[in-house]
Amino acid sequence: MKLSARNVLEGTVKEIKKGATTAHVLIDVKGITITASITNESVDELGLHVGGKAKAIIKSSEVIVGVD
Amino acid sequence: MKLSARNVLEGTVKEIKKGATTAHVLIDVKGITITASITNESVDELGLHVGGKAKAIIKSSEVIVGVD
Amino acid sequence: MKLSARNVLEGTVKEIKKGATTAHVLIDVKGITITASITNESVDELGLHVGGKAKAIIKSSEVIVGVD
Amino acid sequence: MKLSARNVLEGTVKEIKKGATTAHVLIDVKGITITASITNESVDELGLHVGGKAKAIIKSSEVIVGVD
Amino acid sequence: MKLSARNVLEGTVKEIKKGATTAHVLIDVKGITITASITNESVDELGLHVGGKAKAIIKSSEVIVGVD
Amino acid sequence: MKLSARNVLEGTVKEIKKGATTAHVLIDVKGITITASITNESVDELGLHVGGKAKAIIKSSEVIVGVD
Repeated sequence: MKLSARNVLEGTVKEIKKGATTAHVLIDVKGITITASITNESVDELGLHVGGKAKAIIKSSEVIVGVD
Repeated sequence: MKLSARNVLEGTVKEIKKGATTAHVLIDVKGITITASITNESVDELGLHVGGKAKAIIKSSEVIVGVD
Repeated sequence: MKLSARNVLEGTVKEIKKGATTAHVLIDVKGITITASITNESVDELGLHVGGKAKAIIKSSEVIVGVD
Repeated sequence: MKLSARNVLEGTVKEIKKGATTAHVLIDVKGITITASITNESVDELGLHVGGKAKAIIKSSEVIVGVD
Repeated sequence: MKLSARNVLEGTVKEIKKGATTAHVLIDVKGITITASITNESVDELGLHVGGKAKAIIKSSEVIVGVD
Repeated sequence: MKLSARNVLEGTVKEIKKGATTAHVLIDVKGITITASITNESVDELGLHVGGKAKAIIKSSEVIVGVD
């Protein structure tokens, strides 16, 4: 599937922290860590596990730009 | 300023495409290109220019995870 | 590709309205029209056209619930 | 109240799963299930209950388009 | 209509800037200016005009917290 | 740091409710309460505490406009 989202970053799952309904998934993308908050169900349905491949997908309209 | 957003990625502005009210800013972060859609006004106020430093800021709740 | 987004709605492109940098794409999903604002580039790269198949993908954290 | 959000989908609450602070609410819209992640407080304040009417509200800028 | 969004801020339209497809609407809420990017169509359909009443609606999951 | 986000609202932390992984932070901005859902980790890392200064940061593309 191709996506309209401008940012589709391929990486490897580094850590998964499950909460009551929401999980935080850390994905390593070429040395950059991207954190995603997704449902626990999604973690299970996608079969996410540490060391597995995963993509971090981000719409460009969700990105804020900062300058020091 | 420190931010609650889990993803604050430091990089360099690679390209700026202004539209009627919205601009697309491409930021190079260690070889990964992050695209942000922001207002034209923000581009001006932040003084964004190709080659300048910039951060791409993304809340973890905005990130979707994909698996092939 | 499987996605963590809880809402992946399959439909047919009904209308595409391109702006300066942003396009509005209307997708018919079983009689419901979903409007997506995406970049003009995405419209081109995905080869979107009226009558073509497309999915509307929405993270559950982006959905607001309303009650009359 | 009229909303700027392009997507206001009327349906019926199908299921409510409360977590520690966040709840997942499934709304049936003409046979399509839309999942919303909202605060537990919102569930209570809106008086959401299975079988009750509810609207799923989604800004067009939050919708990603996918093509197989 | 009651909304799950935690932030429903009542104010007055201060300025409307229409672009090709996207408009920026500035709403004055007790002396604070909130800027919303919405479709031009929404501006027309809601009958937004400078001096008119309007609400700025923001899901709590969209808010980033910053500390100096 | 300057941000592209059009809405950067300075206020004071009024209440912090921690859940399993997600916290709700209420910020008082000139008498208006803004609720943010952020990770528990962010609450700790930012050193957020009731009575402390904090900014609520919101991209204009995340704001929905409503009219009665």
